[in-house]
Amino acid sequence: MTTELTGATPLTRGSADQAAIDDRYMAAAAALGRRGRGQTAPNPNVGCLIVKDGLVVGRGWCQPGGRPHAEAMALAEAGERARGATVYTTLEPCAHQSPRGPHCSGLLAAAGVARVVSGLRDPDPRTDGKGHDRLAAAGIRVGFGGAAAACRRSMEGYFTQRRHGRPHVTLKLATSLDGCIAMANGESRWITGAAARAHGHLQRALSEAILVGRGTLDADAPRLDVRLPGLEPRSPRRLVLTRGSAPEGWTAIAAPQDIAALSAVDHLLVEGGAGAAAAFLAADMVDRLLLYRAPILIGGGGRHALGDIGLARLADAHGRWRLADTWMLGSDRLEVYERALEQD
Amino acid sequence: MTTELTGATPLTRGSADQAAIDDRYMAAAAALGRRGRGQTAPNPNVGCLIVKDGLVVGRGWCQPGGRPHAEAMALAEAGERARGATVYTTLEPCAHQSPRGPHCSGLLAAAGVARVVSGLRDPDPRTDGKGHDRLAAAGIRVGFGGAAAACRRSMEGYFTQRRHGRPHVTLKLATSLDGCIAMANGESRWITGAAARAHGHLQRALSEAILVGRGTLDADAPRLDVRLPGLEPRSPRRLVLTRGSAPEGWTAIAAPQDIAALSAVDHLLVEGGAGAAAAFLAADMVDRLLLYRAPILIGGGGRHALGDIGLARLADAHGRWRLADTWMLGSDRLEVYERALEQD
Repeated sequence: MTTELTGATPLTRGSADQAAIDDRYMAAAAALGRRGRGQTAPNPNVGCLIVKDGLVVGRGWCQPGGRPHAEAMALAEAGERARGATVYTTLEPCAHQSPRGPHCSGLLAAAGVARVVSGLRDPDPRTDGKGHDRLAAAGIRVGFGGAAAACRRSMEGYFTQRRHGRPHVTLKLATSLDGCIAMANGESRWITGAAARAHGHLQRALSEAILVGRGTLDADAPRLDVRLPGLEPRSPRRLVLTRGSAPEGWTAIAAPQDIAALSAVDHLLVEGGAGAAAAFLAADMVDRLLLYRAPILIGGGGRHALGDIGLARLADAHGRWRLADTWMLGSDRLEVYERALEQD
Repeated sequence: MTTELTGATPLTRGSADQAAIDDRYMAAAAALGRRGRGQTAPNPNVGCLIVKDGLVVGRGWCQPGGRPHAEAMALAEAGERARGATVYTTLEPCAHQSPRGPHCSGLLAAAGVARVVSGLRDPDPRTDGKGHDRLAAAGIRVGFGGAAAACRRSMEGYFTQRRHGRPHVTLKLATSLDGCIAMANGESRWITGAAARAHGHLQRALSEAILVGRGTLDADAPRLDVRLPGLEPRSPRRLVLTRGSAPEGWTAIAAPQDIAALSAVDHLLVEGGAGAAAAFLAADMVDRLLLYRAPILIGGGGRHALGDIGLARLADAHGRWRLADTWMLGSDRLEVYERALEQD
């Protein structure tokens, strides 16, 4: 991909080629935006790439706390080279003045860019269409296009908040092939191997908050921090699902629906145990499943990964999940399932 | 592959090329041999390909009941074209006279073939090395080589019998993502979809016998036949794991170890339920796992796929299974696990 992005690929071939080129650059912008995931809420974790004469001259992603925005960071890197360049940004540039800084459509216009391609329209009514209007008024060619699915996936927390008024929820399960999260005696260290556990820590770093059930908190006293070199500062806020009180450093959540009231949490990782996982599934508040599966069998008596999820008929279980991705992590296999149907 | 096998690929390039060519032809012979799987015990389900001047002139596989042998069938197709040809056979040609027909090394010599490549040496002491000796004595170039793993896998029942004195055992499980084979009320139709169920029927056709537990027999009265067009005659012998008596048309097996006494059964498919599956796992008599997994969650109260398998410590569960293959069947996923270590 480096060659494609930094080489001398002309940007002026036919329109089909242009769409393919836009798609590549936008996918790279989405990957940049993913760097901010878990750090920017309630701001979207936008990614931005500035391309001039087939060379990438600026890269940016929304910084922790939401500022600088991705476009401002990429423009700062590009400097004078932004003049006449094409800008790929995963979300329509903002159009509203903020006490925290100027709006990006104004910055882009002032930098003299020639073209702005946005991955997705911003549902925020302060921007929604107005960003492109401002750019067009400044004589900049504007359009939507390229890697829309990658853009949406990279900012799924922001879009879930805008659409459903709650964080995007990922449920993580680490099981044996026969669906157990522990032996009958509670032994669960370790089911999955080092690579899978490191990947799980990375998921923490990509979430503003992480939740466990009361039973897991009491039994395991988990730290829920990010134990990956360089990512320790990204350890998320800790939540416990309980009708009682939370210990020092934790926030009590009485019911899954109450996550809607959390501020600055766009991505929530539910780590277990079986009761908390079932509560979020029963409330239809799980958007993504991460199944880490070790090539072992535990057998009857092993602890089942899920409590009661309120399933009445087998037919009701079908059609809800779609395998989005799968790969190996050492000898374990990770499967990523997403909602098969958009929630109402 | 057709092009490779039937095109004008010369067989006389350098030795590295020759090894690659041998590998391709032998893999095709193993695929032919697989056609006989489940039909030939106690004879091995050998496959054979005869190649002359870069063209496949004969194809054979061991026929139901064990005769004709693969080489005899391929020679019959090749006729005069066998003279000077190369023969690929997944197992060393037999060297012993049988009341049921002549031995293959004699047939090959009489046909005037120039070269015989065998995938694996035959552990049967009546042949073991003697097949190649006979061929070499007739002036035929002989050697082992090519796709040994594919050859072994295609005849795993034969080799398991020779090494361990029992059939090769495949355990089939059809579960939800959380490892359930049924709802709490027993409802299990259907967890997996039509493509996965058809694939399961094909596994029946590739087995001489199929086994269920007494509980499954009483609850479901399964027919265990092969309901695939054209394969109905391949429905396997039906076994039930019980200390009691078996109904008409069924054979009672008191314990997993007793399958060693079955005659003409080289491949056994264990289809459930949780008790029978656990009994074979606890006895360390499962060689391959077929996991059909539907993209659904059932949750607590669902019936676990396995009964007690006698696992004392989590560490003992590791290192036993290796993912050999995985693919989609409709929206379900099939995973094939094999023993990670050869059994003593």
